[in-house]
Amino acid sequence: MARIAVVGATGLVGEKFLRVLEERNFPVDEIFLFSTGKRKREVYFKGEKHPVLPPLEIPEVDIALFSAGETVARELAPLFREKGAVVVDNSSAFRLEPDVPLVVPEINPEDVKLHKGIIANPNCSTIIMLLPLYPLHLRWKIKRIITSTYQSVSGAGRDELEKLERGEEYRDEIIPWIGEEFEDGYTKEENKMLYETRKIMHEPGIMVEATCVRVPVPYVHSLSVTVEFEKRPNPEEASEILKKAPGVRVEERKLREIKDRDEVFVWRIRYSRVFENGLSMWVAGDNLRKGAATNAVQIAELLT
Amino acid sequence: MARIAVVGATGLVGEKFLRVLEERNFPVDEIFLFSTGKRKREVYFKGEKHPVLPPLEIPEVDIALFSAGETVARELAPLFREKGAVVVDNSSAFRLEPDVPLVVPEINPEDVKLHKGIIANPNCSTIIMLLPLYPLHLRWKIKRIITSTYQSVSGAGRDELEKLERGEEYRDEIIPWIGEEFEDGYTKEENKMLYETRKIMHEPGIMVEATCVRVPVPYVHSLSVTVEFEKRPNPEEASEILKKAPGVRVEERKLREIKDRDEVFVWRIRYSRVFENGLSMWVAGDNLRKGAATNAVQIAELLT
Repeated sequence: MARIAVVGATGLVGEKFLRVLEERNFPVDEIFLFSTGKRKREVYFKGEKHPVLPPLEIPEVDIALFSAGETVARELAPLFREKGAVVVDNSSAFRLEPDVPLVVPEINPEDVKLHKGIIANPNCSTIIMLLPLYPLHLRWKIKRIITSTYQSVSGAGRDELEKLERGEEYRDEIIPWIGEEFEDGYTKEENKMLYETRKIMHEPGIMVEATCVRVPVPYVHSLSVTVEFEKRPNPEEASEILKKAPGVRVEERKLREIKDRDEVFVWRIRYSRVFENGLSMWVAGDNLRKGAATNAVQIAELLT
Repeated sequence: MARIAVVGATGLVGEKFLRVLEERNFPVDEIFLFSTGKRKREVYFKGEKHPVLPPLEIPEVDIALFSAGETVARELAPLFREKGAVVVDNSSAFRLEPDVPLVVPEINPEDVKLHKGIIANPNCSTIIMLLPLYPLHLRWKIKRIITSTYQSVSGAGRDELEKLERGEEYRDEIIPWIGEEFEDGYTKEENKMLYETRKIMHEPGIMVEATCVRVPVPYVHSLSVTVEFEKRPNPEEASEILKKAPGVRVEERKLREIKDRDEVFVWRIRYSRVFENGLSMWVAGDNLRKGAATNAVQIAELLT
């Protein structure tokens, strides 16, 4: 049994942490819930009301699940670690630090062991993209990936999601920028997909060109993906491989059917028209579940 | 002065035909409006009410602008042609027929002269994509194009647009299929982007891999585009070329600002990360205007 803290407990991902811990029957001994926001002061966990506190006193816990943004993570993760916790952080604060494992349990579970008190949960689109690509990499070896994303507004947090629901800002718009833009014209989100892919897969030579785009849907990220391999792939075998891959379903689904599912859905697997050794496919997954909370709780399970 | 017929006059594109003819002061002598639907029996043109008739008697006109779908085009275009009209058809019925020019006036205006009574107006996404790509092709020569589209629901017609507005079907969904799917996993819309690009540009060697996707916005198609050239391009020069290109604006815009504009907007011009001689960019244009009605009226202008 473990003592658990959730930091950012009232956010969209924080709430999913609680639901996923319940659903997976994670052995929780005691739970401490924190939030720096003013939204709610209590939330339900396993049918009981729990107070949500400002993080003024740091308790001793075994695992602290963080989803409170980069700034809070940088400030509070070291404090939880000092008190003996292993922090699993959903922000991008530590993801590329050399002594912080960046883990997708279906891909690099063994990296968890190398932690020094902090483990990073990868970017949502990166997790969703790699779940089906990794088994294909093992078969044909990936050289280049080109993806355009269709990312839901829940990925931007609760305030933004409420704007969509009120018909503001996101409604009827397609926004081809997520995160700040750098000199070379790529955005922070697009760089995450490149550098996190290399780190998770331990393949520093893979190139990833991403165009990350916000679309006016509340939940589930979709990706148009084209991959070039070293060896000649074929769509039928890819489909067979993916039907056996953990966490992957080869099925066409509506976004509303993918919402709240932990699997990543893949369909339209076909030969690429631009790469001789290429495949193209459509990938979709719930960004709040496998793209965030479920992946973090799976990491926590590897620790217990 | 010309006698004009509009077939499909009450559809989304048909109505735009009338607005664009008015705005551009097209020299209309007499206008005949037809529709096979039952929606409206009269529409306004230049401030006057005109009856919309079922196409039972075919008048003698100089130019017939068609936007009534493939089936109606196949049936009626030959009848208008017999009566002496040049048909400019917005459907895909004749686009790939060898003796039917497929024209984007900024790219291949001289092809208009080769018509034998029918000229085809290209697919909306293809027009919008090629307007900025063609001037770059003249400079560096395109080898391969890979695009994922974000196509608005108005492209599917008025009935579908009304479903979106009622919050049905399209709302909150991303649909990676437009048109029927073929054996190889590509859809009709994706094949249009490949074969029409080759025909318009007179470049049968160019490869186009498109993933065509319907997104829940009412107006304006957006495209994530990556292009490989034979020669080494650079984003600054591309931007300079496109600032001078007819019908193109190098500006970031919201979809609601692009709606009802005839120009195609391009931004995020940057080096590709997967092609050494590549550029990536974001392209958006009003599918009912330059993607359909404006392009057709421009073709009609070339005929007068």
